[in-house]
Amino acid sequence: MHSWIDGQPATAVNLHNRGLAYGDGLFETIAVRAGKPSLLELHLQRLALGCQRLAISIDLPLVRDELLRFASQLGDGVAKLIVTRGDSQRGYAPGVGVAARRILQGSPLPQYPAVNAEQGVRLFACQTRLAEQPLLAGLKHLNRLEQVLARGEWQDAEHAEGLVCDSHGRVIEGVYSNLFMVRGGVLQTPELSRCGVAGVMRGALLAQAPALGISVQVSDLALADLEQAEEVFLCNSVYGIWPVLECSALKLNWPAGPLTRKLQAVARTLLDT
Amino acid sequence: MHSWIDGQPATAVNLHNRGLAYGDGLFETIAVRAGKPSLLELHLQRLALGCQRLAISIDLPLVRDELLRFASQLGDGVAKLIVTRGDSQRGYAPGVGVAARRILQGSPLPQYPAVNAEQGVRLFACQTRLAEQPLLAGLKHLNRLEQVLARGEWQDAEHAEGLVCDSHGRVIEGVYSNLFMVRGGVLQTPELSRCGVAGVMRGALLAQAPALGISVQVSDLALADLEQAEEVFLCNSVYGIWPVLECSALKLNWPAGPLTRKLQAVARTLLDT
Repeated sequence: MHSWIDGQPATAVNLHNRGLAYGDGLFETIAVRAGKPSLLELHLQRLALGCQRLAISIDLPLVRDELLRFASQLGDGVAKLIVTRGDSQRGYAPGVGVAARRILQGSPLPQYPAVNAEQGVRLFACQTRLAEQPLLAGLKHLNRLEQVLARGEWQDAEHAEGLVCDSHGRVIEGVYSNLFMVRGGVLQTPELSRCGVAGVMRGALLAQAPALGISVQVSDLALADLEQAEEVFLCNSVYGIWPVLECSALKLNWPAGPLTRKLQAVARTLLDT
Repeated sequence: MHSWIDGQPATAVNLHNRGLAYGDGLFETIAVRAGKPSLLELHLQRLALGCQRLAISIDLPLVRDELLRFASQLGDGVAKLIVTRGDSQRGYAPGVGVAARRILQGSPLPQYPAVNAEQGVRLFACQTRLAEQPLLAGLKHLNRLEQVLARGEWQDAEHAEGLVCDSHGRVIEGVYSNLFMVRGGVLQTPELSRCGVAGVMRGALLAQAPALGISVQVSDLALADLEQAEEVFLCNSVYGIWPVLECSALKLNWPAGPLTRKLQAVARTLLDT
């Protein structure tokens, strides 16, 4: 599938790119259907916020234009957008006036088993803990060794995702998903001010919930809270929502409940429009 | 200056390299003088340890051979070796049987002001705190956004380095150096089991000290310990040792003392042989 750097077809990036040297950049993983990027404005908003926090200056209208052109060529698939602080010589200093680089990579839509969405998934309980770094929390930056380590903990196909906690044992997210639970009819999801990735689908669901008459609560969650949950689900901006049926290592299980099903339909609509 | 990928001249890396995607790899920054890499075995040892901890499989004798060939072509300069988990499609899963990639980049020896080593340096007190992640602590991995943020905190030439603490306020290191202090004649340096990079020069000095009749202590250090220090110095495997004269924001200053000068000569010898 095709890939671009700064709007031009390319398959390789300069060895001096700071994305390679330091993971000095951000990325967005965007579902594309019939040539249209899903949740485009939310992806761009998160990217802009990340760039602001890392002091990377980008031309957002240009990024939008490129994404739209790239998606129309892609048709159906996933467009991964990487923005790095650009190329520089050795040394951590961010440099002044260095142009950020925009990388776009196309790939096919992942072929997840249909049961994931229809029936639900099993969660692997990862031992890898997320470090607490408020300066980077919430961002989808390129420093993702923790996710690589967590995803490396299981190889079987039985577990579609892994549950990841922070160093204090608080429940944070999946390896490539955000996590929600329902308790007392209230939709709850972990606060992500110390670690974790504030996913675009998570943001969209939190934004939609009030209009659907669903109360939401964003707060610290412990494993004990998961025990009391009536429903648990995962989400991201590629697959939408997967109900979580169990986390066997923790002897926890949940039904694919009504609020999950309701929001699953919402997520589907969000991804299709 | 020249650069290689997997032993062949190259200036660009495949867009699917996991070093770019996730910072999924490690690096070594090696001083090269008269065509010889300094502290070669220590660099290779640390790299091997890092690869083991990240489950990246490399051919160490091949890496050594390439480094020696690369250095002989470089003459005088810095050889930066990046080892990544290789190329892969989208997704955090490390993949099985993916070949690690070896990247070598040459650059000139940095032109630090002579006063840094001769008289000493001023430390900027960075606000950026290092997150505590025992799984990655000590490694020189490619997830270096914290260092980029810390180094971005000052632009003036007055401060040669920055002092970085962990999220509990413990003293850890410089942005691109390790830190030592002398108290009661004992050489002390922070423990790096929660965060920080266990530098090759740090390791070499710790290894040499006993034979020089110097007692060493590796333990947690607080800013209050720095207040009581008789001497403070920084080290890395490119510049050797710089005495630290002051950290003005913390109203701390120290003389360039006798143990610093003694070890500075040791470091110089280590780098020259």
